[in-house]
Amino acid sequence: MSEIEFRSDVTVELVRASANDSDVLFAARVSTQGEQTLESAASGTAADESKDRGLINFLMRDRHGSPFEHNSMTFYVQAPIFVFREFMRHRIASYNEESGRYREMRPVFYVPSEDRNLIQVGKPGAYDFEPGTAEQHKLLQEVIKRESESAYRGYQELLDAGIAREVARSVLPLNLYSSMYVTMNARSLMNFLSLRTKHPESHFPSFPQREIEMVAEKMEQFWVELMPLTAAAFEKNGRVSP
Amino acid sequence: MSEIEFRSDVTVELVRASANDSDVLFAARVSTQGEQTLESAASGTAADESKDRGLINFLMRDRHGSPFEHNSMTFYVQAPIFVFREFMRHRIASYNEESGRYREMRPVFYVPSEDRNLIQVGKPGAYDFEPGTAEQHKLLQEVIKRESESAYRGYQELLDAGIAREVARSVLPLNLYSSMYVTMNARSLMNFLSLRTKHPESHFPSFPQREIEMVAEKMEQFWVELMPLTAAAFEKNGRVSP
Amino acid sequence: MSEIEFRSDVTVELVRASANDSDVLFAARVSTQGEQTLESAASGTAADESKDRGLINFLMRDRHGSPFEHNSMTFYVQAPIFVFREFMRHRIASYNEESGRYREMRPVFYVPSEDRNLIQVGKPGAYDFEPGTAEQHKLLQEVIKRESESAYRGYQELLDAGIAREVARSVLPLNLYSSMYVTMNARSLMNFLSLRTKHPESHFPSFPQREIEMVAEKMEQFWVELMPLTAAAFEKNGRVSP
Amino acid sequence: MSEIEFRSDVTVELVRASANDSDVLFAARVSTQGEQTLESAASGTAADESKDRGLINFLMRDRHGSPFEHNSMTFYVQAPIFVFREFMRHRIASYNEESGRYREMRPVFYVPSEDRNLIQVGKPGAYDFEPGTAEQHKLLQEVIKRESESAYRGYQELLDAGIAREVARSVLPLNLYSSMYVTMNARSLMNFLSLRTKHPESHFPSFPQREIEMVAEKMEQFWVELMPLTAAAFEKNGRVSP
Repeated sequence: MSEIEFRSDVTVELVRASANDSDVLFAARVSTQGEQTLESAASGTAADESKDRGLINFLMRDRHGSPFEHNSMTFYVQAPIFVFREFMRHRIASYNEESGRYREMRPVFYVPSEDRNLIQVGKPGAYDFEPGTAEQHKLLQEVIKRESESAYRGYQELLDAGIAREVARSVLPLNLYSSMYVTMNARSLMNFLSLRTKHPESHFPSFPQREIEMVAEKMEQFWVELMPLTAAAFEKNGRVSP
Repeated sequence: MSEIEFRSDVTVELVRASANDSDVLFAARVSTQGEQTLESAASGTAADESKDRGLINFLMRDRHGSPFEHNSMTFYVQAPIFVFREFMRHRIASYNEESGRYREMRPVFYVPSEDRNLIQVGKPGAYDFEPGTAEQHKLLQEVIKRESESAYRGYQELLDAGIAREVARSVLPLNLYSSMYVTMNARSLMNFLSLRTKHPESHFPSFPQREIEMVAEKMEQFWVELMPLTAAAFEKNGRVSP
Repeated sequence: MSEIEFRSDVTVELVRASANDSDVLFAARVSTQGEQTLESAASGTAADESKDRGLINFLMRDRHGSPFEHNSMTFYVQAPIFVFREFMRHRIASYNEESGRYREMRPVFYVPSEDRNLIQVGKPGAYDFEPGTAEQHKLLQEVIKRESESAYRGYQELLDAGIAREVARSVLPLNLYSSMYVTMNARSLMNFLSLRTKHPESHFPSFPQREIEMVAEKMEQFWVELMPLTAAAFEKNGRVSP
Repeated sequence: MSEIEFRSDVTVELVRASANDSDVLFAARVSTQGEQTLESAASGTAADESKDRGLINFLMRDRHGSPFEHNSMTFYVQAPIFVFREFMRHRIASYNEESGRYREMRPVFYVPSEDRNLIQVGKPGAYDFEPGTAEQHKLLQEVIKRESESAYRGYQELLDAGIAREVARSVLPLNLYSSMYVTMNARSLMNFLSLRTKHPESHFPSFPQREIEMVAEKMEQFWVELMPLTAAAFEKNGRVSP
């Protein structure tokens, strides 16, 4: 049996992107000016940049969402299955996930790190989380490791007996890592971020599970680099998706 | 600890439906005839019914898909999580699933019945499945029951220690039952059926996992009752979604 | 040639609906409570109704959008083509429109009524409209009637010469009436209303063209009757789609 | 008044693309192989290329559609409004069109060329088109030019009288050119091509209006350059969208 690995982090890589603020500007100006050259849509001088910033801010504020769709970002994500379960509820995106029917799953499992809050307080719909005690963390590590190892041994036992992968995998737990390729445009990503990050600047409250927020934060870092004016306008306008 | 339950079936209930062949006819005739009354769209005589059947068959054959969208079916489904993982990849549908963050999951687990094929043969993308031996079934039952019980005990241990449900649930396995409320229109349902059932009449081959096919078959039964002409045309035209 | 008709209004009929507040409640409670009966989801007593109202308001406020999707409303709409051009940009909906390829278009044209504001003031993205003068209305009536009649005569001339409908229709103007069958769920309808009505209670500003707003207002009237608690929560929370 | 221009063609420019066969391969191999490097997904040798071709063909044939979604193409299109009306019924795409509310429309109108078939034969749903006579073409040119000029003069008359652009534009005909920015992925494009081109290799019959087919053909030319293996597999498998 392969060595079992435990991780407390998630992986997000930007595989490919065609995403620039100038695409937003170009699309918006097609609506208002008709024919133009791509060059003229991109800013050149400082005065132009201020105008560009203003236009993107206006689009965001008044919820003109469509100009934010003409771009594309593809991420490669590794995270536990319970994160993927939440992620794939976002329907304006394209997914290809590692398949437990086509391949044998590798023994990599998620266990929360010491700084993951463990105690749920507050009421349904507005749960908050507070730090666990050292004993709680110790128990959590023990139980998760024990159950993950046990489940993976069971999985191997079934595979060794010649039982199909798609049947055997049903004993594997939700903290097993999977991987996927996900493609989104900036508008869909902003919707994702508005719901899956908890942020002091947010106009609407969000209560994401910490692990999907870890994925969202890494996606946001890439996006901020690619589309700085759009990201700034998103922040300025309360992180509401247009 | 609650008594652990093992099931080998899935539950599909039709919660609510507004789905009739006459809606298809009405929508199609808006395209071709403009204003009309709803009454005139519905068939009355035998001659009319033959005409209705012909029109629906024509729409299906030539992939005029939009008239099949003006209807709605809501199902309540209980199935193991690995089925829901596949189901929710279908993006033209509405979902509300039981949440492991909001409530404690009940100890109901899936174990394949004796007639579930266990041996995967063929090559990737065209897997076929053959019966398992008695020994394989015995082992499968043992391992699944053992691992399910162990995982659920671990879950309870974490909850008892005051650890948040959303953290504790990560040890639960993919054969745990969940429940959801799913709403689809007939066009989206046909796409689902074309991919998630294996059928001798199918024009395109499909290789669904048996457990999601069990859900699909039950959904199809309800749909055939609601929209018999549409279902007959789907069958007649190779079970290809228009 | 058929008699030319001029109209200043739009038609919206509710063809069929499966849309109730209790569906919202049921879907939301699947998430938080799992299995239940449909009956128990619906309110009975006054205390229950207050609880139902509170739950729907909470869902709306915190943008839990999915429970508002398990319903369906089908409308039959007659409006000028320029309204349909805007309407069909809403992608979470199903459409069947009268086809100028399949049938000869009837000579019904839109002309603004006397109370339609004609003068655009303000700046791009935040245009406001003020009343036109009597002279402007007179000119508008004259020009629209003259051009509509001329275009329809040209259309007939081409049809009479044996030219295909799909070619001949290209001379018809954007104020020609068309008709369609459109199906939406409440979440998509709320998004439509938030963008296509201008309302003092709106949290976000909107600048719809008056004619599509006339359609939206009629749709909203039907919806308020069907889902009063949902509509009240929408209003209370700034007419922001969840 | 600006000089009126008549055109018989459409414009399609590829503004930006992130679309390669290697993205399809990479996404497909995530499903079957899990972690890998992007480099290893791209073919190197002739043997690899044959394997790549085989995998893409298999995905297409067995309708594994999702690997074809991780890419993006943005086109700038100029075409008459009646083409845009059909185009925007395709919902899995992003649009920004020139707005008649924000800007004065330029006087560019479509008139069919001499080789555009004018006579509709066959029955509804399977119309075919045959050449018109010289007289028919002459009449068509006359009527279209006359009505386009008349309508545009009416438009100018209303604008000159201070009437809002969004009101005045309603007299403009469907053969007026508009422009848009449209973004699609390859899967959505294949669906578009399967419905909007008429092709001897097509497994399912299509009956597109010639003018939208002219747009589709130009889009296909760009796509074939970008994703030759995918385009070849599409052709080989009856031009059915996976």
